[in-house]
Amino acid sequence: MIGGDLDRAMALLARLPGLGPRSARRAALALIADRDGLMRPLADALGRAADGLSACRICGNVDTTDPCRVCADPGRDRATICVVARIGDLWAIERARAYRGQYHVLGGLLSAIDGTTPDRLAIPALIRRAEAPETQELILALDSTVDGQTTAHYIAERLEGVDIRISRLAQGVPVGGELDYLDDGTLSAALSSRRDVLR
Amino acid sequence: MIGGDLDRAMALLARLPGLGPRSARRAALALIADRDGLMRPLADALGRAADGLSACRICGNVDTTDPCRVCADPGRDRATICVVARIGDLWAIERARAYRGQYHVLGGLLSAIDGTTPDRLAIPALIRRAEAPETQELILALDSTVDGQTTAHYIAERLEGVDIRISRLAQGVPVGGELDYLDDGTLSAALSSRRDVLR
Repeated sequence: MIGGDLDRAMALLARLPGLGPRSARRAALALIADRDGLMRPLADALGRAADGLSACRICGNVDTTDPCRVCADPGRDRATICVVARIGDLWAIERARAYRGQYHVLGGLLSAIDGTTPDRLAIPALIRRAEAPETQELILALDSTVDGQTTAHYIAERLEGVDIRISRLAQGVPVGGELDYLDDGTLSAALSSRRDVLR
Repeated sequence: MIGGDLDRAMALLARLPGLGPRSARRAALALIADRDGLMRPLADALGRAADGLSACRICGNVDTTDPCRVCADPGRDRATICVVARIGDLWAIERARAYRGQYHVLGGLLSAIDGTTPDRLAIPALIRRAEAPETQELILALDSTVDGQTTAHYIAERLEGVDIRISRLAQGVPVGGELDYLDDGTLSAALSSRRDVLR
């Protein structure tokens, strides 16, 4: 419809998750309607972010510094490494503000269907970090799916004989969850992992 | 979580229609995952579009040229002006490839609730264009809503005594529409505007 650049921007917006051609068009109209307050600032922020971001050589997180802010923070516990599949999982745990240790981003999960083999993930680097003397615990914060469990199992097996604690996230009723709407697997897990009520 | 620029980009993405904080985060993760193929090209396209776009002084469309491509096209009929509320409506009609005349973008619809009065819309400019000798027809392609009908009525009244044809879009069953799912208003309009079957 309009100049090539806007068409190109719409085609690229349509490739973002959750957006399609139709919503990319609506987004473009919103951008046009506020060129100085929205379109140009977004272009600038994306451009500077694209230039500034790089993968952390220690944990695989993405940040404007390398090592990343988490790895470089002297106030964080160096004995614990939280293993996540993707950067988004790291963000989610940081948002919860309940963890002050290190991270390790695998870059995905083992998957027979997708053909994701151990050498395609950051597992060798994780093994090295796990074997380092300062490491005491690995928290496997992986999806509660077949691929997540396979990956957790594989990592635990590879670390047999290495003297560290390996833990995984608790399974159970999500906070705010109503029993009526929970799947059987979650209910079973919550039942078998039931905890004593402190009186 | 990450550098200020990415946070800013996420906040701006979250302001686009159809996106919220959550989907903006997912979009940012997709952008990070493909910095060279998606993030940087999007930044460049948006930046160039923001620099290049301006409102057409004739019809109010937005384009990289002024007058816009439609107004400047010598192959398009100059006698007919299609009046639309927003640029997105103009795009929709152009996508249908069923119209080869001029446009006039009002910039909204008259609305008592939003306080949109005639002087906030491009109605004076429309009156001038309607009175020009080459103009023979005004097609009011406005939403089939109270505001759209109010606006159409107002424009028709303002042009009383001006010797041009004023038309509006036909109302009826949408192509592919199933009668069972149509609202009563559409059904009534389709019935009262029924047309003879050619035999």
